[in-house]
Amino acid sequence: MPVGTAASVKTLDADDLRNLGTQIILGNTYHLYLRPGTEIIRNAGGLARFNGWRGPTLTDSGGYQVFSLKELRKITEDGVKFQSNLDGSYHMFTPERTIDIERDIGADIIMPLDVCVEYPTTHSEADRAERQTFRWAERAKKHWETNPRRQILFGIVQGSVFPDLRKRGAEALVELDFPGYAIGGLSVGEPKTEMMPIIELMDECLPQNKPRYLMGVGTPADIVRGIGKGVDMFDCVLPTRNARNGSVFTRHGTMSVKSAAYSCDYRPIDEECGCLCCHGYSRAYLRHLLNVNEIAGLRLLTIHNLYLYLELVSHARQAILSDEYDVFERRFFADYNEEIES
Amino acid sequence: MPVGTAASVKTLDADDLRNLGTQIILGNTYHLYLRPGTEIIRNAGGLARFNGWRGPTLTDSGGYQVFSLKELRKITEDGVKFQSNLDGSYHMFTPERTIDIERDIGADIIMPLDVCVEYPTTHSEADRAERQTFRWAERAKKHWETNPRRQILFGIVQGSVFPDLRKRGAEALVELDFPGYAIGGLSVGEPKTEMMPIIELMDECLPQNKPRYLMGVGTPADIVRGIGKGVDMFDCVLPTRNARNGSVFTRHGTMSVKSAAYSCDYRPIDEECGCLCCHGYSRAYLRHLLNVNEIAGLRLLTIHNLYLYLELVSHARQAILSDEYDVFERRFFADYNEEIES
Repeated sequence: MPVGTAASVKTLDADDLRNLGTQIILGNTYHLYLRPGTEIIRNAGGLARFNGWRGPTLTDSGGYQVFSLKELRKITEDGVKFQSNLDGSYHMFTPERTIDIERDIGADIIMPLDVCVEYPTTHSEADRAERQTFRWAERAKKHWETNPRRQILFGIVQGSVFPDLRKRGAEALVELDFPGYAIGGLSVGEPKTEMMPIIELMDECLPQNKPRYLMGVGTPADIVRGIGKGVDMFDCVLPTRNARNGSVFTRHGTMSVKSAAYSCDYRPIDEECGCLCCHGYSRAYLRHLLNVNEIAGLRLLTIHNLYLYLELVSHARQAILSDEYDVFERRFFADYNEEIES
Repeated sequence: MPVGTAASVKTLDADDLRNLGTQIILGNTYHLYLRPGTEIIRNAGGLARFNGWRGPTLTDSGGYQVFSLKELRKITEDGVKFQSNLDGSYHMFTPERTIDIERDIGADIIMPLDVCVEYPTTHSEADRAERQTFRWAERAKKHWETNPRRQILFGIVQGSVFPDLRKRGAEALVELDFPGYAIGGLSVGEPKTEMMPIIELMDECLPQNKPRYLMGVGTPADIVRGIGKGVDMFDCVLPTRNARNGSVFTRHGTMSVKSAAYSCDYRPIDEECGCLCCHGYSRAYLRHLLNVNEIAGLRLLTIHNLYLYLELVSHARQAILSDEYDVFERRFFADYNEEIES
């Protein structure tokens, strides 16, 4: 899922997303709630009509952004009170209020308010956050069920890198019987050697027949590994954010298009890539655009990166359907140099 | 001609320009010479290959930008010495050197080095500049003729707002027999009541059977009037620059999309417009994009403005071919409120 923070996948419009074959985009409730505000989105007929996308959407709960505010927020049993990072105004997100906001935004898949902890954290801190997340999930589900409309609500497993907490959290949520489950609180700074065992554990704990969404992950390598461990959905700002920093992903790893090495390199980023960027524009031209701060360059690199990600997951799906995922994964890593991955 | 200063019409790529039905784009020799440098463009096979456009191009001589540098440049009979605005390095443009640079850039239509004067200026200052422009035009033409390739060189008429200088300049250039003629040094701050008589005078002085290019002009109203006075070609940053400031042109004048009045306005900019922006995106969404600094909004407004300009000149051409230009011009001004034009 490309990340469309403020009702826009940065540098792209809905036509670009359709041309890329995007299936679903993510919106950030925190940002949309502050600007343009939920009323403007609701009156437009929901996020997918407001931004012209008209396809499937998912919204997070805003929890992740609110917890990132640190000094500007305060958690109670009821919810989380916070100050806008834009104007200092006070707001309160409760599990019920978040569902109401997400109803107004109108995404197809919505997330309950959860408590995200930093990495590293203590077991007791993670324990408290996981319990709070569960109590809020119960309240969110109850509130959602009063008027589910056509939206489905996922449960979010928290518990940091502690297997006992993750297991307890997953089992409790499964008992509540959500239509899908998200693995939250990963890719927040922990080493991959800590992240992967948790994903493997979730593969054991979460039901096989419901979608699993690994939040905020990741690099192409993370995604290939995650799919191998049963994950169905991902969102990540890497393809779009890295593009705006001049960094692109290829089948072989990453490359920094700004490098002077490309100033006279008239080849596309990847001769075998089928994206709009690789079909019409050379490394030399793209480097020049970045060098002179032409925003057309940021868009072309964004298109390339999203195309690569979407093609990767499309191939992964084909490999699963033909029961050859192991071969696919081995081939991917034979080509891919993770060392130079950003 | 959309203006592609640094080998990019700001916010757009070559695919966007083709989708808009663009016929020719302009490149700025001064900017291209400094970045990426003419060698990189020449080695790419010229500007239209470097930037992926692959269609007709025109380059100015760089004179206009060099003269804007003011304290950083010095004119002699030989040419103009200047310091780069980027790194303070010294450079020299002579009529011959400019032709050489424009050969490397490889546009289809190229311009000779000319002397642009500010508005207002004295008759004697404009007289001196016009004479210098003519002597440089002679040298440029001579140098171009040694190796014209497939490029054609226009002559540029200067002379500020003084009819006697303009007439003398035009007649002298016509005697040199250029393949086309440009009217330079207008739209530099003079009132329209001073600009239009000069354009009318040029209609009398310049040959009917050769293209006439009014440099740096203008608003939709200027263009409609200019075509009525025999002008065939225009370039202007207004449609692209105004878009990046949130201002769009419509059949009725201009509108500022940032206005709070549009925050809940779910109509397109212009319901009768056929552009990508008006087909998929509302005023409310575009205003939101500008409000949260999403660059996708700048591109959509740029697409709208260029579409409007290109459609306007296309309709003007049809009106000329059916010998109804007077009707076309009258209808245009009946709809168009020039008062609110920026």
